[in-house]
Amino acid sequence: MLTELKREAYEANLALPRHGLINLTFGNASALDRARGIFAIKPSGVAYEALKPADMVLVDLDGKIVEGKLNPSSDTPTHRRLFLAFKSIGGVVHTHSSHATAFAQAGRAIPIFGTTHADYFNGDIPVTRRMTKAEIADAYEWNTGEVIVEGFKRSRLDPVDFPGVLVNRHAPFTWGPTVAKAVEVAVAVECIAHMALMSLQLSPGLKSIEPELLARHFKRKHGPGATYGQKG
Amino acid sequence: MLTELKREAYEANLALPRHGLINLTFGNASALDRARGIFAIKPSGVAYEALKPADMVLVDLDGKIVEGKLNPSSDTPTHRRLFLAFKSIGGVVHTHSSHATAFAQAGRAIPIFGTTHADYFNGDIPVTRRMTKAEIADAYEWNTGEVIVEGFKRSRLDPVDFPGVLVNRHAPFTWGPTVAKAVEVAVAVECIAHMALMSLQLSPGLKSIEPELLARHFKRKHGPGATYGQKG
Amino acid sequence: MLTELKREAYEANLALPRHGLINLTFGNASALDRARGIFAIKPSGVAYEALKPADMVLVDLDGKIVEGKLNPSSDTPTHRRLFLAFKSIGGVVHTHSSHATAFAQAGRAIPIFGTTHADYFNGDIPVTRRMTKAEIADAYEWNTGEVIVEGFKRSRLDPVDFPGVLVNRHAPFTWGPTVAKAVEVAVAVECIAHMALMSLQLSPGLKSIEPELLARHFKRKHGPGATYGQKG
Amino acid sequence: MLTELKREAYEANLALPRHGLINLTFGNASALDRARGIFAIKPSGVAYEALKPADMVLVDLDGKIVEGKLNPSSDTPTHRRLFLAFKSIGGVVHTHSSHATAFAQAGRAIPIFGTTHADYFNGDIPVTRRMTKAEIADAYEWNTGEVIVEGFKRSRLDPVDFPGVLVNRHAPFTWGPTVAKAVEVAVAVECIAHMALMSLQLSPGLKSIEPELLARHFKRKHGPGATYGQKG
Repeated sequence: MLTELKREAYEANLALPRHGLINLTFGNASALDRARGIFAIKPSGVAYEALKPADMVLVDLDGKIVEGKLNPSSDTPTHRRLFLAFKSIGGVVHTHSSHATAFAQAGRAIPIFGTTHADYFNGDIPVTRRMTKAEIADAYEWNTGEVIVEGFKRSRLDPVDFPGVLVNRHAPFTWGPTVAKAVEVAVAVECIAHMALMSLQLSPGLKSIEPELLARHFKRKHGPGATYGQKG
Repeated sequence: MLTELKREAYEANLALPRHGLINLTFGNASALDRARGIFAIKPSGVAYEALKPADMVLVDLDGKIVEGKLNPSSDTPTHRRLFLAFKSIGGVVHTHSSHATAFAQAGRAIPIFGTTHADYFNGDIPVTRRMTKAEIADAYEWNTGEVIVEGFKRSRLDPVDFPGVLVNRHAPFTWGPTVAKAVEVAVAVECIAHMALMSLQLSPGLKSIEPELLARHFKRKHGPGATYGQKG
Repeated sequence: MLTELKREAYEANLALPRHGLINLTFGNASALDRARGIFAIKPSGVAYEALKPADMVLVDLDGKIVEGKLNPSSDTPTHRRLFLAFKSIGGVVHTHSSHATAFAQAGRAIPIFGTTHADYFNGDIPVTRRMTKAEIADAYEWNTGEVIVEGFKRSRLDPVDFPGVLVNRHAPFTWGPTVAKAVEVAVAVECIAHMALMSLQLSPGLKSIEPELLARHFKRKHGPGATYGQKG
Repeated sequence: MLTELKREAYEANLALPRHGLINLTFGNASALDRARGIFAIKPSGVAYEALKPADMVLVDLDGKIVEGKLNPSSDTPTHRRLFLAFKSIGGVVHTHSSHATAFAQAGRAIPIFGTTHADYFNGDIPVTRRMTKAEIADAYEWNTGEVIVEGFKRSRLDPVDFPGVLVNRHAPFTWGPTVAKAVEVAVAVECIAHMALMSLQLSPGLKSIEPELLARHFKRKHGPGATYGQKG
């Protein structure tokens, strides 16, 4: 069932250690078939070397396991929360990539210092507020998604313009129309975090880039006027 | 004799350079058969490329070499001290992995800043006190173990909750129920150290994570209520 | 047409991820046949793994596509501007290599702190001024080249003595008599940036090297008195 | 002629990029046959991929080329100066490895902060004084060796206890009884520099390790009482 969806999720999960975003089993990727309301996600705690496409667990948007012998990733409710709130997305990636996680642990958004960042995000990479005791005590993983969604609503951020977030004290989540695109954003976020850390070291009070430079780069790659890449 | 134990120790030793935790011959791993009171450990100063399972040296808990033509690792008495004091462990790993060693050299514990850390340690990664002149002069490697054990007793740390330590001025030791698990912790410690260093750079006075977030993550992976991974 | 030129550009583009200078598709290389006034450049947004020599797009110095089914790199007008202004160069490379980009984002030139740097640049690696709103709004990529050329004229820098630049808020561009040499300079710039960042960390007010040491090293590799390497 | 010596030098040169100590052609290794007074050294500016054992150039201790069609490394006079002054050494390695070079550029010795360092050096890794205008203007490479030798004499350092040095504004040189050992020290120096940089970041006023800990570790690996490794 949904062999192609499972293969997409599988390929995305394998791409994470290959891009150096994952140590051990710290991370997971999921792919959604929105028409069916079912997503394929990595099983919990299985080594990447041992993973097979058929190991992907199918879960529906109510959180019910539709197919799969293994437990799904413990972060499954976070993925589900994001799929429910962000209607345009088809894939979610979670990593503990080192530089992005350093910002998350420090509870700091990643300021937009250059065009690499502007190619992917229409502003700073946001960080969530800290979770409350109650949110941690019960339905923690669902609430991790909830705190992301709440923050996006409060700040009126469009998940298309901001295809990722840092969960405070935790690590990054990224998303996109496909899980492959969410992997690409995860790679970009790690690279952007590394460069931002060093730019801050070189210039501690560094200001964000000018709005017009941000707009120019972001629009080269996004929206109807995009000029980057090849047309279908 | 104990072919399987030697193979486990051998595999663990080979995993260390593969994970980028070891340069040259800076490190060693040992696997204990607690019923027999014998552990298998890397021979001293042998290049990882040249290592064979049969090269592993078998040593008993009194420190006597039971089998092996080569000298065991010069750190053997430290491993032995840990096996004697920490009854629940079956493997010990020692590396000079760069970021963890930077904390050890600075004599600083690694503060718990995020969930990656909370998945492995139930609090800060401890650092030992410095060794005295007398401890260094005589039975140095045994005393290296002694100073770890003493610190755990004094701070009432359970080696299950804290599966590793930084030896002051030296480098990390990690352990686990198996040597494979001790390797996993060694990978995690290095990654946690790297991220903590960067989080401190971003936010020099950063506070530790909230106790409830620590408990939530630690308990996802440890103890009877663990939900992470697949059930046997 | 121009099969050899396309192959040179292709090889240079592939060298960028191999040297760790490029993540995803952040970068491009071009090779110029100055006699014909035509350069071969990477197509826009194509993954390096999928690239073939025949995918290289041929563009003339007026900006007209001479051959190629794919869109050329969105940075093509920057390459063209550099080829027009700097008569001695035959190849241009653009990367977002992490350490060099950290300096570019901070708007800082890379100070010359050692002989590695002096082997490649006859002084600090310059950084452009920021671009104006008008320059960003219209013909942005051409103006990126323009702001480089203007800076070199104003500071009377010879592109032979300074085979690269950091574009403010953006990333490095390098060049050379051949595109292979421009790749070599891109590798050197990244390495120099990394070391300069760390030297500044160790010694925040560090001064540049003495002019005589700079001259000695630069001239070992450049000009009629060069003694480095093998003679044709 | 001296096929084995050329092979040793060749293997050592190839080991440098494999250990990540070398970018492009920034580095060289030489092996000395002290009885014959001849050393084999890398040719200048030849890519490591293209190197063959037979390309090694044979040079005598008066600086005369004994065999070889290619120019020897431009750093040959530095190697020669070291071989002449330090009677116990049989190999010299020069790299621009990033972290060690960062200390060299900053003109700072690498303070001894831990046991990894103590396993290789009997104290801080020294840095030379800066070279004078006259020393740079004439016989620069020979004088690079001279300034090393002079510093060792002035500080009464034994090249056996201190198997390497940072040349101010330049980069590290290491040595040993064999060129293979000099490569090992080059790996250690880079690793030690990286950890020292981070320990200083964590603890800016960090003090050196205690003399007794230094002595304990250094003597485990050096001198008649050495206990590390396997006996011949």
